[in-house]
Amino acid sequence: FKDSIAFVTLEPCSHQGKTPPCAKLFSELGFKKIFISVKDENKIASGGAEFLKKQGIEVEFDILKEEGKKLLKPFLKWQKGQFKLFKLALSMNGSPLGKIVSNDLSRTYTHKIRAVIDLLVVGGETIRKDHPILDARLCKAKAPNLCILSRQNIDNFDKNIPLFKVPNRQIYTQIPSEAKFLMYEGGENFLKIFKDEIDMFLIFQSSSLNDEKNVTIPLNFKPLYRNFLGSDTYGIYEL
Amino acid sequence: FKDSIAFVTLEPCSHQGKTPPCAKLFSELGFKKIFISVKDENKIASGGAEFLKKQGIEVEFDILKEEGKKLLKPFLKWQKGQFKLFKLALSMNGSPLGKIVSNDLSRTYTHKIRAVIDLLVVGGETIRKDHPILDARLCKAKAPNLCILSRQNIDNFDKNIPLFKVPNRQIYTQIPSEAKFLMYEGGENFLKIFKDEIDMFLIFQSSSLNDEKNVTIPLNFKPLYRNFLGSDTYGIYEL
Repeated sequence: FKDSIAFVTLEPCSHQGKTPPCAKLFSELGFKKIFISVKDENKIASGGAEFLKKQGIEVEFDILKEEGKKLLKPFLKWQKGQFKLFKLALSMNGSPLGKIVSNDLSRTYTHKIRAVIDLLVVGGETIRKDHPILDARLCKAKAPNLCILSRQNIDNFDKNIPLFKVPNRQIYTQIPSEAKFLMYEGGENFLKIFKDEIDMFLIFQSSSLNDEKNVTIPLNFKPLYRNFLGSDTYGIYEL
Repeated sequence: FKDSIAFVTLEPCSHQGKTPPCAKLFSELGFKKIFISVKDENKIASGGAEFLKKQGIEVEFDILKEEGKKLLKPFLKWQKGQFKLFKLALSMNGSPLGKIVSNDLSRTYTHKIRAVIDLLVVGGETIRKDHPILDARLCKAKAPNLCILSRQNIDNFDKNIPLFKVPNRQIYTQIPSEAKFLMYEGGENFLKIFKDEIDMFLIFQSSSLNDEKNVTIPLNFKPLYRNFLGSDTYGIYEL
């Protein structure tokens, strides 16, 4: 890497966290210039650019700054407290209803996210109606801890509903403060209640029409990223 | 092109049509081998492979045959009689309703197709409700001829509806036999009536939810091609 140039989204950190400081590594590897999209505002980790300059490495800030901020948003939200993602699965005709809306690829993608979140937040209505498992079996990972937000006391829920039988799972009825990466999963009512406090939306949409009622909450989603998973479309959106 | 290899979807033609025979050009340019996906079954144009072989050019059929057939379907349907495309524009929540559903890019794409079709087929309901122009102004091309399928006599339609004021436009009430490339544009009722005789569907879908009712005809679309146009998604589908 001698005399190489690096392009990074976030200012390389200067502190020893779980891993050694990135700025030190750039210096040791002999990089000559680092382009940084977004300055690190975090008090503990910042100062990487100063360190690099002292080592004689050229530093330039603000390259593709807006794009960098979008890529970093989940991390920065998480770093400052909580990142909240809302997952919505719709048929092509805009209905979240029906036992299975998305295809295997989309559901596996969702399970991969379930495997890395701190908490899955769901409503009591979904649980009583759909009797879900809400685990991460499609990627063979540990099922996420759950927070069930319900006006009813969950002690009265049928404990034969599969999600209650998942081993080593914590079930909360209020969001614990230590949960930093949260995924909300639900339908129209859940979306209506929480849309304004959600950071990003993960929306899957199939290529099928059915005869179910659609979601009818007027919302303009701004796509940040979209792609296809087999016959489904999916995207990361902001409001 | 001496000793080059060509890969073609359809067997090169051997006849003089609007343009000279393709097979002759391959021979004159000195190609050494032609891979052909689909054999030309058309009586007038076929025989290109035989011609090529006589000129000492190697020919191999059936490469990516299924993919080739999909690409050729609109052409082959058109060649044999008619190719019928149904255009549907939906909001993310599956509603075709509302004055403007798709964005400028999607509507311009539609206008580009309107500019090359032989006939635009619409229902009387759309015309009475939406008062459309149904022209190709977004790509500055000639407006397509129209076929209005309506149980009501179109003589009784309000002639101030913009589509009637487009100059040099033929308006039919039955599909004329000389029309070979047809685009149907409509909403739920039109889709329900014609879905089984349509060859392909062109579906645009926005990134917005609204409070309108969705289409509720159970249909599983198979995507042949999909992409994005700004915040909209679009695709070519078969049933």
